[in-house]
Amino acid sequence: MSQHLPTAPYRGTRDFLPGEMSVRQQVFHRLYEVIERFGFVRYDGPILESAEIYEAKSGREIADLQLYTLTDRGGRRLALRPEMTPSVARMIAANANKLQFPVRWYCHVNCHRYERPQRGRVREHWQINVDTFGSDSANVEIEIFELIHEMMSAVGATRDMYVLRANDRILLEGILTGIVGVPAGRLKDVSSLIDRWEKYPREQLAEDGAGMGLSDEQFGRLEASLKAGEEILGDLPAEVIERSQLAKILQSPARDLVTFDPLIVRAFEYYTSTVFEVFDRDPANNRSLFGGGRYSDLVGLFSDKRIPGFGFGMGDVTLFDFLDTHGLLPKPRPEADVAVIPTDESLYEAARTVAGQLRQAGHRTTVPLEPRKLGKELGRADKAGASAVVIVGPEDWSAGNVVVRHLVTGEQQTVNVPSLPDTIRDLLA
Amino acid sequence: MSQHLPTAPYRGTRDFLPGEMSVRQQVFHRLYEVIERFGFVRYDGPILESAEIYEAKSGREIADLQLYTLTDRGGRRLALRPEMTPSVARMIAANANKLQFPVRWYCHVNCHRYERPQRGRVREHWQINVDTFGSDSANVEIEIFELIHEMMSAVGATRDMYVLRANDRILLEGILTGIVGVPAGRLKDVSSLIDRWEKYPREQLAEDGAGMGLSDEQFGRLEASLKAGEEILGDLPAEVIERSQLAKILQSPARDLVTFDPLIVRAFEYYTSTVFEVFDRDPANNRSLFGGGRYSDLVGLFSDKRIPGFGFGMGDVTLFDFLDTHGLLPKPRPEADVAVIPTDESLYEAARTVAGQLRQAGHRTTVPLEPRKLGKELGRADKAGASAVVIVGPEDWSAGNVVVRHLVTGEQQTVNVPSLPDTIRDLLA
Repeated sequence: MSQHLPTAPYRGTRDFLPGEMSVRQQVFHRLYEVIERFGFVRYDGPILESAEIYEAKSGREIADLQLYTLTDRGGRRLALRPEMTPSVARMIAANANKLQFPVRWYCHVNCHRYERPQRGRVREHWQINVDTFGSDSANVEIEIFELIHEMMSAVGATRDMYVLRANDRILLEGILTGIVGVPAGRLKDVSSLIDRWEKYPREQLAEDGAGMGLSDEQFGRLEASLKAGEEILGDLPAEVIERSQLAKILQSPARDLVTFDPLIVRAFEYYTSTVFEVFDRDPANNRSLFGGGRYSDLVGLFSDKRIPGFGFGMGDVTLFDFLDTHGLLPKPRPEADVAVIPTDESLYEAARTVAGQLRQAGHRTTVPLEPRKLGKELGRADKAGASAVVIVGPEDWSAGNVVVRHLVTGEQQTVNVPSLPDTIRDLLA
Repeated sequence: MSQHLPTAPYRGTRDFLPGEMSVRQQVFHRLYEVIERFGFVRYDGPILESAEIYEAKSGREIADLQLYTLTDRGGRRLALRPEMTPSVARMIAANANKLQFPVRWYCHVNCHRYERPQRGRVREHWQINVDTFGSDSANVEIEIFELIHEMMSAVGATRDMYVLRANDRILLEGILTGIVGVPAGRLKDVSSLIDRWEKYPREQLAEDGAGMGLSDEQFGRLEASLKAGEEILGDLPAEVIERSQLAKILQSPARDLVTFDPLIVRAFEYYTSTVFEVFDRDPANNRSLFGGGRYSDLVGLFSDKRIPGFGFGMGDVTLFDFLDTHGLLPKPRPEADVAVIPTDESLYEAARTVAGQLRQAGHRTTVPLEPRKLGKELGRADKAGASAVVIVGPEDWSAGNVVVRHLVTGEQQTVNVPSLPDTIRDLLA
């Protein structure tokens, strides 16, 4: 009927029904566990932030085109956070005096961007953000790269399925100014050209490069440099290499964690040196799954203190696409372990007592809400994925017993009520 | 310096630093566990909803005064959800054909209301929502009431600390029309008067009542009825009592779960019969902690199907105030179990290897990021709440050993690397 309100969620946002939510939670819990094993502690913060914190440093695409803004009844201009890094930088600045740096923080939050919904892009996505604050050491990069491999491993991914590609804006600037000959005023433009490198045909890139003032020869040098891999680093002066933590890592035993790739740029303006992205290696889905980098000055928006940050945000959409593509999604967990079924209405109270005992013992236990035939309730318990049902019938109950049926084997036994929790524990084990 | 952006979160919203977040998560996890033991399954949904779904049924206060609204770049009028019930009703309607009713669903979401921040009121709060859809049976009420007592017990509350007060709009309407003599057109007004009953002095209530057309005698009868407790139900006709699930419960063994109280009204317009609130019994904090009720027609906004709902939302602010008042807040969890400390920079790689083994064994393990003196790192590990440190020194390491120090007892031992995980497991046990 036309007077009903629409049931679809707002375009680009998602309802998560229990089955899907169960899959998501299993994956997220594995990730939380790994992150916490590295000593990262969880925090949280508001969805609404002052709009200006994104206008300062997130980059024009986000601030001008993708930000959801609103004005509250008191006239304050607010935004739904499009990403977490400015928020966490704000929180670090606010609490710098009581924190013992370096700190390792993580969160799991939803972010909003006004995008045209398409594969891998939604308007509300959930992301895990992992950041370290207060250290310039290459140990920070190494730890985060190690963590990422452990996270991928925890959700079932092996190193042949993905690659961690990293660059350093310091190295890239060295290449662009020293080798290609890009003037300082054109660095941003040429970086954005590199950011598009894998998405556009060569002619288009050459044309765009010419528009930025690159001569054919310069474009040729750019192309050669981007293809050269780590060898290009040999052509950079020592004082550039020395400023790069990534260059240090590439010369250490930790080099196995990462693949140098000058094509990695990332759009956020706040990154200052190391930037990285994790790519799916599947040729059918050769996409960036998530990424991050080092931002040495972002806390400076909020504070006099210089507190460098390094971190990444792992969004749910690309991650779950990746897991799905590679057959790594877990099954939804059964909705309940045990169903306690009274055979008539006078036994509901008895059934609730029995269910209470089983819940006390830790079992997820349901009791029917509507009186229905036993057969129907057995079918329902089976569909819910329960392993056992406990049937409470009048004669058994008056003798202090119930009947336990194993839904997988179909075996059935009469059990004395006090020993029921043990019977169920053994049956579920 | 004045050019810095402010570090405070938006007024009425909160940053949760890791220590506080740890406390919150411990409490929430206990609640999730209890809810799931009753067979409720978790779902989630978007923060942004079409504004009209609140304008229809949430009540004027929310829709006109408290809603955060915005218009997206495509011209759609949206709201940040102020509560979850309309969203979950929408999702149930959207998926009614594939669900096996009755269903038990829960979520944990943030909601926004534009309120003047004060004790117990914020603009962004987190709430656990628990709902059952598809049954009119009193078993639904009984199960939710049982669940609430189990949830309160799981966070350490005993029955002397709180009371579950319930009413039924069917019974209240019976009292107002049959006993007090309120005309049908005035029921809403008089209900809102009852909703204010405990917050205003008698004279004010009498004056407001007079303004609604209540004679002195009617006001006297209203006052007497509201004070009479369950006895008033004896004065209602049988056909009213028969329509009330709450009245059935009050005549059953489940009556211990709940206290009848005609003062409980609740502001949401969508409630149709049972309504309830859980109150702190502490005289210093005699407030409603959370509440809910039965809404038989809300899904009907979105669908032809009649799917009755019953549920409640438990907000974090009042809950944590309650736990704090009663001394029930858990301590933050230590940030790490073990700190592995290399005594010089050349041993970082070794320290990372050792840490990797301990993480594999499930221990939350840190390695320093910045080279610092051993004493400083020991102090840091202690402050983080670690129980043990593993010291990696050059001579020990070349002999295949490390030193384990128990931070509580101060005892220290040299351990062969392969047996380290076992040593740490025993030490942490």
